[in-house]
Parts: sequence; structure tokens; C-alpha cells
Amino acid sequence: MTIQHYIKKEFSKMNELQKKIFSGLLHEIMTGKYRVGDTLPTELEIGKMLQVTRHNSHYAVKALENAGIVMRNKKRGTVVTRIPSKFELNSLKRFTAKKVCILNHSHEDYRHIHWNERISVPLEKELNRAGIEMETRIITDIKNTGDYMELLEDITDQGISAIVIIPAGGVSGLFLESAEMLFRYHESLFIFDRGSLECDESILNTVGINDFADGVTAVETAIRSGTVRRIIFCMHQITDCRWQKERLRGVRLGAWRMSGGAVFVENYVYGVHGEFPLNAPSPETVLIACHDEAAVTFIEAGKRRNLHPGKDYKIIGFGDDSRFSQYELTTLSPNLELIAKHLARQILDSIANREPAILHSCRVSSKLICRKTL
Amino acid sequence: MTIQHYIKKEFSKMNELQKKIFSGLLHEIMTGKYRVGDTLPTELEIGKMLQVTRHNSHYAVKALENAGIVMRNKKRGTVVTRIPSKFELNSLKRFTAKKVCILNHSHEDYRHIHWNERISVPLEKELNRAGIEMETRIITDIKNTGDYMELLEDITDQGISAIVIIPAGGVSGLFLESAEMLFRYHESLFIFDRGSLECDESILNTVGINDFADGVTAVETAIRSGTVRRIIFCMHQITDCRWQKERLRGVRLGAWRMSGGAVFVENYVYGVHGEFPLNAPSPETVLIACHDEAAVTFIEAGKRRNLHPGKDYKIIGFGDDSRFSQYELTTLSPNLELIAKHLARQILDSIANREPAILHSCRVSSKLICRKTL
Repeated sequence: MTIQHYIKKEFSKMNELQKKIFSGLLHEIMTGKYRVGDTLPTELEIGKMLQVTRHNSHYAVKALENAGIVMRNKKRGTVVTRIPSKFELNSLKRFTAKKVCILNHSHEDYRHIHWNERISVPLEKELNRAGIEMETRIITDIKNTGDYMELLEDITDQGISAIVIIPAGGVSGLFLESAEMLFRYHESLFIFDRGSLECDESILNTVGINDFADGVTAVETAIRSGTVRRIIFCMHQITDCRWQKERLRGVRLGAWRMSGGAVFVENYVYGVHGEFPLNAPSPETVLIACHDEAAVTFIEAGKRRNLHPGKDYKIIGFGDDSRFSQYELTTLSPNLELIAKHLARQILDSIANREPAILHSCRVSSKLICRKTL
Repeated sequence: MTIQHYIKKEFSKMNELQKKIFSGLLHEIMTGKYRVGDTLPTELEIGKMLQVTRHNSHYAVKALENAGIVMRNKKRGTVVTRIPSKFELNSLKRFTAKKVCILNHSHEDYRHIHWNERISVPLEKELNRAGIEMETRIITDIKNTGDYMELLEDITDQGISAIVIIPAGGVSGLFLESAEMLFRYHESLFIFDRGSLECDESILNTVGINDFADGVTAVETAIRSGTVRRIIFCMHQITDCRWQKERLRGVRLGAWRMSGGAVFVENYVYGVHGEFPLNAPSPETVLIACHDEAAVTFIEAGKRRNLHPGKDYKIIGFGDDSRFSQYELTTLSPNLELIAKHLARQILDSIANREPAILHSCRVSSKLICRKTL
């Protein structure tokens, strides 16, 4: 049982008045009015001070004792044994809040890919339907841990049901550093991951894109598209990011599975191995680009050799990047609507406390969009 | 779209006869009767050979063309363009099979923890209710990849709806090596992970124990149990296994969150730092043992100093190991019944092809069992 469910259980046993007394005493302990070793007023005194019955103050003090914050002793009275963390106070606010906060770390240039209306609109709709407000904060201006802590303090102080993180694309230093910090501020954390995350899955709920499966789909589509003699995985540049590694791994293993080991996947890096892997038309060659942006770089390099995609060679991309719609690329389009549905379900389950003991992670495969290049 | 869903889609368009013709032709291509470049009999000839209408043979050949296995050409006829892998043939069998195979790698000494009736009975019940048979193979005698491949070939040849892997506890070399091999044999793979797995999550569906959250629960329980001045994470021996690292990380971060940084978690390794961390009674000290077996080692070492758990110090374990019931340890008991429920749901969803695009992973928190030692 985590602290949140413990607090919720304690809360469920108390009436509104008792909750108020409990929260008030907790606040006084946390703000330094009482220190470890200090004695709280008696239940009778509390009752008089707050004009409540002794019965009500008794249950509030009892809950503090169950939380290990005070110890009741016949001789010494109610003694403070530990100062709870700010987190415990914030955990209380979580139950009354009706708001989810989206922290969008994504870089401006890639925001149309990393967090767009295809996902935000259905997510907000689902949350609103359950009476939950959704607030989005674009936080690319936050550059250090101190500022990030201040932001989290601000958000959790106000009370918030859940936090959704959109990590920056590529290397997301601040976020990775702060995954453990986030844990200290909130218990209901969700990540929408576009594939950049290497952080351990056991702290946070994750909904993401299954880049591995997308690699498999790309290569299976290529192999089924007719006679294929060469498959080349084409990269824009050498980077070690997770999504690229996963797509390549999917392409390799998918090729193995589809061909029983007969088809070997070559590797080609723009600028390192040259500009374009073919000198003459080769309709039995499929280029699998690491993403649409890379595909477009290769298509342009091919055009300079008078080679045209879909005619002289085949090419497939990943991401369905709206900036390149004029190329009519066959690509894998992330199923953002389904991702929004799952994210909403996870968040609402967490707020309703359904299956609190389970941490979820799911990766959604993309949809194949057949256009002209393969 | 993965190959499985592609094949299923092709299949859904065909009648039983067409499926039979398709499978028969596929079998002949795979067994070498026709090679790449060879010409298949015409649709009329196939019809005559198999005593079916030309209409039926047409659709079977069309499906082969859609799968990129043959190319139809007015001049040359139906030419074989690629030899599909064995995997594609096995994928077909998956749709008619009504059987799930459990591959139990777990070591005999730990099988009572790693795969016991608390999980196998409810899982089998759920599967049987859906008309699916469950077969269990204990495969600790398989020591090399060649034997493992033979086993997988045997299982998939017979047709199987899904494979569930129970990895060996501790280091599971063969399994980790073979995660990618498994992928080549079957598309519906599930892991029940007791915490030993470091392999990437994007290939396989996983249901496991949330060791991190269990560490958090242990330390929160300790801190709430009264005045706590020292928390010591006690290890049996120095090992680098995932579950131990995760539990320790949970204990550390949980302590931070509950105390706002005031409580520091010490580390103690049996035999390295000594036998027992205390020389005199210290009821404000909580030992968090890495698992019940370690807890028992420490309890015995304490007894030799005339120190008794629950009285002279507090101790909490993980795993609810039935071998040590006489110690009346407070421990975190894995919620195997809930794990079985989720595993069954994932498997049945995969068989019914509900949400085929989603790869699931979930980690289930354990239940606190309060006994006498904390």
C-alpha cells in the first residue's frame, strides 16, 4: 500500500469535519508550530479551540497516530514523533483536485510531432467528460533543476490529480535527471513517450509508440511489396537515440522473420557513406528511412541523380510528418487517437483509484499510410 | 500492421476452401517444390488438380500475390518471387490453435516462488473458461540455444495460440539471449517476470512484480510504525540483480519522500559488513531485508546476540516465502492472483485480436502482510 492509498483509506474513515481537523493539525506540524518531541493540545483542548466535539478531534488525532506522525502516551499526552514531508500534505490535496496538468517539454520545432491536436483534443475531451480540467504548460524555458522544482512545488501546492509529462524529443537531460525528483512531488505521473526515453519503467506510467513494431511493419510491408533484392536502412545522421535503435532493431528482426534469414538489411548514413545509396534505377531496392525527415533528405539527394521514389526505387518513412506532405511518402503514422484513449483511461483509473496497485506501460503500433513511394 | 494481422485479414476474406488451397500452395513453396523464379500451375490447372472451381483457386493465388510471395504476369504466368519463412506458415496455425504453452525456465529450488499454484490455477481457469487449453513445460534441462530452437520449432509446428515464458530466477542467460529468437518463432509472447529481467520491453508483453513500489511500501510502513531513527537495507550478498536494485531504489526514494530528506537509508551486507548491524536492542531501528531468505539469515544472526525481531529491533522482508512461515515475518506478498488475472486478460485479448496494435506491460504491487517482526 502506497502512502496515497493509506491516506485515502484513513480519509475514507473520517467525516468532513475530522478531515479538516486532521489537515489543520498536519499543516501546523509541517509549518513548524510543533516540532518532534513537542506535545499537541489534548483532544478536549482541540475540541474547544475549533468548536468541535471531542469525538471528532479524537478521530483526527488517531489518524495522525496511524500515520506515525504522533504517539499518544497516557503520561506525556500526544507527542510529535516525525515531521511528515510536504508530499504527504500534497497527497491529501490530490483527492479533492479535479485537474490534470500537462507539462510539455517538447522543443518548438518538433512540437507539431511530439504533442499535437490529434492527441491533446481527444485526451481533453475524455478528461472533461469525467469532470476533470486539463491545463497545459509549455516549459521549454525551464533549464535547470531548481526552476523545475519550483514549478512542481507550485503545481502540487495548488492540488492536482495527475501530471502528464511530454519529454523533449532527442536527448531529454532535464527530464531524465528529474524522473526521481518528480516521484518526490506527485504519485500520479504519466508519460507520453515519442521514443526518446531510456529511463526505467518502474516509477512512471508510460504510453508510447512501439518503434520496434513499427520497424517490423515497415520491413514486412517492403518485403510484401514485390520482388525485393536489397533493403537499406537509411539514417540522416549517426545518433544513438532510442527510437532509431528500436526502429532499426525491428527492421532487422522483421526481415529475419519474414525471410527466414535470407534478406540482410544494409545500413547507410547520409554524409558518411555518401549522399544516396543508388546510382541507377533499382526498383527492387527499398530504402527504409529512420524518419520522414531523413526520407526527404534522401529523396532530394536521389532527385539530383535523376532518380525518383516509387518509380526508380522504393522508400518508406516513419512519423507521418505533416511538413513533408507534398512528397506523398508511404509512412508509419503514430496512432495518436488510440494513445490519447489509453492515456485518458490510465489517468481516470488512477484518479478513481481503480487498480491502484498496478503500474501500466503500453506501446502502440503505428498505422501504415500507403502513398506513392512504396 | 504486423504479418499476423495481415494474414488474418487475408484469411478473413477467403472461404474455407480458398484457405486450404492457399495453405497447400504455401506449403509446397516452403518445402521446395517451387523455387524463386519457378512458375506455379495456372488457376485453371490448380482448379482441376484439386477439384475446385477456378474462382476459388483464383482467390488463393491472389492472396499469395498480396503476401508478396508470387507475382502474376500475363506472359509468364504466376511466378514465385520469394520463399516465405517458416514463421509465416506457423502464423496461420495460430488462428486455429486453442492452446497456450507455458515454458517454465525457473530453477527447481525457487519454483515454489517463481511459478506456483497461486498464479497457475487462476490462469488456467480463466483460459479454460475461454475454451483454451494450457500446457506447461518445465524446461530447466534445456542448456543451449540449439535445444531451445528445437523445442520452439516443435511447439510452433503443432500450432499454438500464445507462449508464456517464466524466466529463471537470478541471471537468466539463455532466456535473455533468446528473446530475439523467440520473436522469430511466435508473435504472441508473454512474460511473467519476478524481477530478474533486464531485457528490453518493446518485443514482449510483460506482467511482473513492481519491486520498486514494494520498496516504497516497505519503507513507508517502517516510517509509519512509530519512532524510527535508523533504516538499514540488509542484503544477503552483493548481487547486481534487477529486483534487488529496484527494491533498494524504492526504499531510498520512499524514505526521501516520506521524510522530506530527513531519513537516510544505510546499507548492510551479510558477511561483508559483519553478521548483524546491531549489538544492543534498538527498537527504533528497522531492518529492511532484500528478501525473506535474507531476513531469516539476519534474524538467526541476531538471535546469536540474543536480539529478537519485533521486540529488540524491527525487520521487514519481501516475497512471503512459504519456507520461512515459522518466523512470522512482516513481508510484502506478491499479488499473484491479480497477476494471473492480468496475464489471462492479455493472452485472451491477443487471441481474440482485440487491440492487436498494443503491447502491454504491467507491474503489480505486492500486498503488505503484517505479522510479528514489524
